Amino acid sequence: MGLWVQKYGGTSVGSLERIHEVVERIIRAKRQGNDVVVVVSAMAGETNRLIEMAHGLSFDPDPREMDVLLSTGEQSTIALICILLISKGFLSRSYTGAQVHIRTDSAHGKARILEIDEKKIRADLDEGRIVVVAGFQGSDSEGNITTLGRGGSDTTAVALAAALKADRCQIYTDVDGVYTTDPRIEPAARRLARITFEEMLEMASLGAKVLQLRSVEFAGKYNVPLQVLSSFEDGPGTLITYEEKEMEQPVVSGIAFNKNEAKLTITGVPDEPGAAYRILQPISDANIDVDVIVQNTVRDSSTDLSFTVQREDYEHALQLLEPLIESLPAKAVTGDNKIAKISIVGVGMRSHPGIASKMFSVLAKEGINIQLVTTSEIKTSVVIDEKYLELGVRALHAAFDLEKAPTEEVDLTK
Amino acid sequence: MGLWVQKYGGTSVGSLERIHEVVERIIRAKRQGNDVVVVVSAMAGETNRLIEMAHGLSFDPDPREMDVLLSTGEQSTIALICILLISKGFLSRSYTGAQVHIRTDSAHGKARILEIDEKKIRADLDEGRIVVVAGFQGSDSEGNITTLGRGGSDTTAVALAAALKADRCQIYTDVDGVYTTDPRIEPAARRLARITFEEMLEMASLGAKVLQLRSVEFAGKYNVPLQVLSSFEDGPGTLITYEEKEMEQPVVSGIAFNKNEAKLTITGVPDEPGAAYRILQPISDANIDVDVIVQNTVRDSSTDLSFTVQREDYEHALQLLEPLIESLPAKAVTGDNKIAKISIVGVGMRSHPGIASKMFSVLAKEGINIQLVTTSEIKTSVVIDEKYLELGVRALHAAFDLEKAPTEEVDLTK
Repeated sequence: MGLWVQKYGGTSVGSLERIHEVVERIIRAKRQGNDVVVVVSAMAGETNRLIEMAHGLSFDPDPREMDVLLSTGEQSTIALICILLISKGFLSRSYTGAQVHIRTDSAHGKARILEIDEKKIRADLDEGRIVVVAGFQGSDSEGNITTLGRGGSDTTAVALAAALKADRCQIYTDVDGVYTTDPRIEPAARRLARITFEEMLEMASLGAKVLQLRSVEFAGKYNVPLQVLSSFEDGPGTLITYEEKEMEQPVVSGIAFNKNEAKLTITGVPDEPGAAYRILQPISDANIDVDVIVQNTVRDSSTDLSFTVQREDYEHALQLLEPLIESLPAKAVTGDNKIAKISIVGVGMRSHPGIASKMFSVLAKEGINIQLVTTSEIKTSVVIDEKYLELGVRALHAAFDLEKAPTEEVDLTK
Repeated sequence: MGLWVQKYGGTSVGSLERIHEVVERIIRAKRQGNDVVVVVSAMAGETNRLIEMAHGLSFDPDPREMDVLLSTGEQSTIALICILLISKGFLSRSYTGAQVHIRTDSAHGKARILEIDEKKIRADLDEGRIVVVAGFQGSDSEGNITTLGRGGSDTTAVALAAALKADRCQIYTDVDGVYTTDPRIEPAARRLARITFEEMLEMASLGAKVLQLRSVEFAGKYNVPLQVLSSFEDGPGTLITYEEKEMEQPVVSGIAFNKNEAKLTITGVPDEPGAAYRILQPISDANIDVDVIVQNTVRDSSTDLSFTVQREDYEHALQLLEPLIESLPAKAVTGDNKIAKISIVGVGMRSHPGIASKMFSVLAKEGINIQLVTTSEIKTSVVIDEKYLELGVRALHAAFDLEKAPTEEVDLTK
């Protein structure tokens, strides 16, 4: 019993049949004695339909007007959910983002939530209503409709849960939880019963696209207990929380990977202040995101700097680096767009030294050469030849015993 | 030059191609030096699509939630219009009903506009923007989304024109004006260059479904010059204004008709106070609309009372009257659901006596028997056997010279 925020994504509400199933889940939570706030996305396909119409009129549709257009998607869903809830005898009320004062900045298409006035929702809950809020949208201080960008419904749910001090925030999606790695690559991959916010952030940013990154940050910041659950089948899902002291932490919680990067290296860079800046500035000016950056020790008063970019930016980044050979000067620019990045993630790494070297030995045993290494407190990433990706992921999954559940399962849907 | 409000209905914006044409019209008005406010409906078919979805979930969808759902239709259109205007280099901004404070009562699905705050629109016009407003919708004092009911976009346009003191309110639709009668029945029917608000009200309520009745009332009340124009072809349309003293008025402006009624008669009703009330009260209690009511003079201290109802209510109304034979008492209840009503409408009738008798003689010459007659200041209606409807309309159209234009044409689109 408590206050639950439930979020249902586009595939979960993708048809009238699916809406029936979602409404059954909402009613179950309500019947268990909870106050329920529901956040929904547009029906699967609807956002694309609207985008296509806009692109049928303009190559570069005005961002303010795109938000007016796209926000109709969730608005339809909230109404349909409430129509069914009410016809089944449950008091409920729908709200657009603007109606419950989800105040954002004015960055159309990628707005950030600034504040939420939860009074209206609280009043409805006190009167026994189920409240259904349109995800992904809000309005700025001028009353213009804004959207948070794709996946923003997760953020809406977490922000509402934080504002309402909800007991849990359940993200219903088309997968039944967060996995130790992608089951398409390692069939022995196992759903995690728990994962920490920090680990989830590392997993999400590395390609395990279950939750929108910003929503995980938000949940961590406001300590909102987050659950990832399947709307297609019952199951305990994955709970994302802060690390609990008494919990036995696994050393490695999961293995993330990314095949969509390319590596660039500039060799013979002068060992002087500002060199790295002069290399990365033109890249950043061209709006190219840089992921891993590695600089090695100085040898013969010069050094080598490597970094990775999205694979689609590879050619452009190469062109931007070429002039540096003369201007820096540097020795050469090389690159490789057939790489992959594998990361092992786990808060247990903090207290277990030697995890990185175990990772390297596992890869070496499979004959996989490591091109770059970076580490953070709870993650070690390596860049390797992309053809070894699957082999590497499977070897690491086995070596760190990820197919075995480290903690007993707790059914958090009850 | 001035401030023009243009309203485009669902068929006028029914496809991306049609939106292109509408935007060309808007730009033409703007280029002529006018401030332009545009009101649009949902794309043709969209409202029905949404209604079908709702009915897929509930036989009796909640009215508040239906309004949340249906209002997305116009919201999509305003965004698409603005996307195209902006991509063609015209400053423009879209607003939902709630955003420009189209304040209504809370009668979901048939709300009435209470007030409009035109400041936001005025500020945009002052900055050179074309303002595009969603028709058919508003919000109540609690911020709930409301809709005005089908055809409500006409009312939005007229209400905005009144609030902004617009120089004209142009209603673009799929017909090129108001006709002397239905051209499908009388091919010689002629588009009227002008018609008065009062005549238009009589024409509209009698079945000439060009404009929503409420919008004409509204335009008359606030003296908003209303133009009905085709969005499919250029043309002068029909101007709806107050009667101008210096204008030569035609005696009869148009012929309206209705085939969807049925007649009921109760004979031998006692000539005593309250008899008519006791007959019509059960009808009204059953939510059956009564149109024409005719009571004739007393004969042998009893009278006969006839009235018409929508044809679908005929059987029900008959049942409700049966018990009155005993309780009133009355002599008999009879009825006929194969009738039609024909009305001649014209402000000139005020100053031309004998129009009604001319109507009767025209019908008599064709052998058409008149069952009921009612008259108002600017209208005479007769109920006849429905099989004579077309014959009667054509005979009257010819007799009152309606195929000839009484006033010279003025091109009001310039």
